[in-house]
Amino acid sequence: MSHPLFERHKALLDQALAAIAGRGYWSAFPESPSPRVYGEGAAEAGKAAFDALLNKPFPLTLPGAAGSVGGEVSPYGMQLGVTYPKVDIDALFAAVEKAEAAWRKAGPEAWVGVSLEILTRINKRSFEIAHAVMHTTGQAFVMSFQAGCPHAQDRALEAIAYAWDQLSRIPSKAFWEKPQGKNEPLKMEKHYRVVPRGVALVIGCNTFPTWNGYPGMFASLATGNAVVVKVAHDAGDDTAQKLALRPEVRIIDFTGSTANGEWLEKNARQAQVYTEKAGVNQIVVDSVEDMKSVARNVAFSLALYTGQMCTAPQNIYVPRGGIEAAEGHLSFDQVAQAIAEGVQKLVGDPARAVEILGAVVNDGVAQRIDAARALGPIVLDSQTIAHPQYPKARVRTPLIVKLDAKDDSKYLKEWFGPIAFVIATDSTAHSLDIARSAVVKHGALTLSVYSTDPKIIESAIAVAEDSGVALSINLTGGVFVNQSAAFSDFHGTGAIPLRTRH
Amino acid sequence: MSHPLFERHKALLDQALAAIAGRGYWSAFPESPSPRVYGEGAAEAGKAAFDALLNKPFPLTLPGAAGSVGGEVSPYGMQLGVTYPKVDIDALFAAVEKAEAAWRKAGPEAWVGVSLEILTRINKRSFEIAHAVMHTTGQAFVMSFQAGCPHAQDRALEAIAYAWDQLSRIPSKAFWEKPQGKNEPLKMEKHYRVVPRGVALVIGCNTFPTWNGYPGMFASLATGNAVVVKVAHDAGDDTAQKLALRPEVRIIDFTGSTANGEWLEKNARQAQVYTEKAGVNQIVVDSVEDMKSVARNVAFSLALYTGQMCTAPQNIYVPRGGIEAAEGHLSFDQVAQAIAEGVQKLVGDPARAVEILGAVVNDGVAQRIDAARALGPIVLDSQTIAHPQYPKARVRTPLIVKLDAKDDSKYLKEWFGPIAFVIATDSTAHSLDIARSAVVKHGALTLSVYSTDPKIIESAIAVAEDSGVALSINLTGGVFVNQSAAFSDFHGTGAIPLRTRH
Repeated sequence: MSHPLFERHKALLDQALAAIAGRGYWSAFPESPSPRVYGEGAAEAGKAAFDALLNKPFPLTLPGAAGSVGGEVSPYGMQLGVTYPKVDIDALFAAVEKAEAAWRKAGPEAWVGVSLEILTRINKRSFEIAHAVMHTTGQAFVMSFQAGCPHAQDRALEAIAYAWDQLSRIPSKAFWEKPQGKNEPLKMEKHYRVVPRGVALVIGCNTFPTWNGYPGMFASLATGNAVVVKVAHDAGDDTAQKLALRPEVRIIDFTGSTANGEWLEKNARQAQVYTEKAGVNQIVVDSVEDMKSVARNVAFSLALYTGQMCTAPQNIYVPRGGIEAAEGHLSFDQVAQAIAEGVQKLVGDPARAVEILGAVVNDGVAQRIDAARALGPIVLDSQTIAHPQYPKARVRTPLIVKLDAKDDSKYLKEWFGPIAFVIATDSTAHSLDIARSAVVKHGALTLSVYSTDPKIIESAIAVAEDSGVALSINLTGGVFVNQSAAFSDFHGTGAIPLRTRH
Repeated sequence: MSHPLFERHKALLDQALAAIAGRGYWSAFPESPSPRVYGEGAAEAGKAAFDALLNKPFPLTLPGAAGSVGGEVSPYGMQLGVTYPKVDIDALFAAVEKAEAAWRKAGPEAWVGVSLEILTRINKRSFEIAHAVMHTTGQAFVMSFQAGCPHAQDRALEAIAYAWDQLSRIPSKAFWEKPQGKNEPLKMEKHYRVVPRGVALVIGCNTFPTWNGYPGMFASLATGNAVVVKVAHDAGDDTAQKLALRPEVRIIDFTGSTANGEWLEKNARQAQVYTEKAGVNQIVVDSVEDMKSVARNVAFSLALYTGQMCTAPQNIYVPRGGIEAAEGHLSFDQVAQAIAEGVQKLVGDPARAVEILGAVVNDGVAQRIDAARALGPIVLDSQTIAHPQYPKARVRTPLIVKLDAKDDSKYLKEWFGPIAFVIATDSTAHSLDIARSAVVKHGALTLSVYSTDPKIIESAIAVAEDSGVALSINLTGGVFVNQSAAFSDFHGTGAIPLRTRH
């Protein structure tokens, strides 16, 4: 007898399964915040629901709650005034133990059915969640809505579909009958049960709380595990470490700094630890058809959400002797200048710029921009922009600095934020060598190449395969290297030893 | 264009895929060493091929070979006189690097096709390999043939089928077309390539070199990795550690001691480490229909290959107040005695006994039997049996010692070999509590329960699920707890944190 929630969402699940098999474009949750899609008044109701959360305790009942924590300030400048319950970890895990007993036994159809039901209910609250994402991450509203809601929900559905795809391969029962020549066959009735691992801990990041948090969370739920999302705590205390070392915790999904990720990998040995840590994303420019369209595409990737994306490019390698373009030879400085102009055009109009840039998530980003200014000659300086709607918002445009290949101590680490380096190399072969080594040693989520030469493209593919990074080739249109499409792209690979350890 | 070896073995692969989906009985490689199956003269030719290997260097060309190692003595008493090349590890890995480049790029159909071709060629040499297994492990010939050849080959095929099942889910190409309202859709052509992890190191065990070694080896080959099987080396040197810490090694499949397994887990951080370490397998006796058939079944599991199996039971829990049987109440001592009698019947006739017991793999087993004798009252002493064909063979029968539940420092560790404890507990509930805790703390591959009470069966199922061990219920016929059937049983689970870490 199938679980009713499984039946309710079976058609959605089947579509998702077909999508992950075909990997063409598909989306379950519409990305348009239009009233024609989400209904008249949905936007206003969502905004009102978000506003109603401000300046009071967040309505969340947690076992073992004692006291509260708060003090969040929106990257757009306003005090949120929300407080969250502070929990006693022992009491929390005692409650988890009680709750998980029945959940663990409920079985694959219940796990998947309930997960899908949660997801469709979350989708209905997309506007409310979009405002929450906006005012905690600093993303512009449309991005908060799209990346934080339908795209994140698509990624959750993708995780559930992968889970079901594996769960459904284990029959619940089998009859085993082994012939014995002239004698009676040996007969066995066998039962198989998928046993969840244990408690899954999700430690998200402050830039993409839902987009980065949902996949691990729903993968664990859909396979029958209880999930603990890292609870609110005072800055700098050891709540995350305490949670991670609980013996009940058997899965950890982490997004954040390399130092914290490596600490988990080394110390949380009782758990299967998945980490997404820092990395160095790179663009290799070899030759182009049209420099302007390349610059436009790269500029958008540098500016989108102020470069505060794990997929945003940082290092742009250009041969010091320049490159060939359809318009003729371009010197290294001409290439750097073209990219700078692309950025300037994109962020020249403040009203339009803030819808791309959003706001800076924390002071660390602004400090990093200041520090990066001293690294080399500035091709394009970072500007502070006044936000038309939010005067106290921290809005910054990208900084582009010129470096030489030998400055590897400067560019071979992550400068999280709107910081890009145009780096002079001996040749494209040199660029690719640096890129390969950077991925292996420092991790990366994206590599991008621009070339009109099929041999260079082949070399770039070999580098991507060797080092284990996703490669984009000649992106000049409306698709950007820092976007990752659910059901189609693989966001991150398990191939980079220092980055992702399973 | 499909790879010709993939096409050649496609039907076999399809059968294996159907078998792992249905999990009923299936075998690709016949377990009967009959001439009707393997051909007239196959047995004789295999024996001759094995004999031709003796007393000379093993015909194996290895890069970086310098000098040789040898000195193996068969558990049946004879000097094998075989020497193996000793390799320089740097030279070996330099050769691997060259060889793996083309292999990594060959793609899923080539990886799987070549793996299946290797396997079918191995099958044709089963008799030769059976003799090699016999004279390195001490298994009796029929077991060496069955477990070491067709069953091991089935397990290899199972691993290849799992690999293909996952590989085939990734399309090589997709067209991604995202609608843009009234505008032209965004279009992308996407290519996906499965990138192997790197070099896979297989560290097998001296009791089941092929049965335990093939699954990891073929799983790695079928996914495009190069495989290094731990090379021959002088006893006690650090070859295994040196191999395990090579940065090229990205997968390790290990079977062996807990100390060595934990060393790998802790130190070989660059690799995905799969370990099968020591454990404590257990039988819970609650109530029986027919004590004789229970005793016969348990006795066979204790005696088979002198208990030198990772699945062989060690601890047999019986309530100190005795149990109910169809024949009436049986005291604790009557139960212990019945099992002892079962063993005695099985090994009473030396000619028949040696075909079940085989020989003791090394002196450690014999020393362990001597040490275990001192642990408590002996229910059945271990005997030395003269082997009719091999006068110098080390043949030992099972030892059964009586213990009390409070003697946990004695029985809560692995006593590898033909050593069993009948342990008096307060009740079956107490037995199950001990069993649960033993699995979680010390690892286990098998748990077996005998009960006529459906509630006790339910409790045993709950213990097995909680602790993550495979459970056998009321085995009294020709199926034994220490046997694991390819395509149907799951040998080992990932659920025991201290035992298996992924």
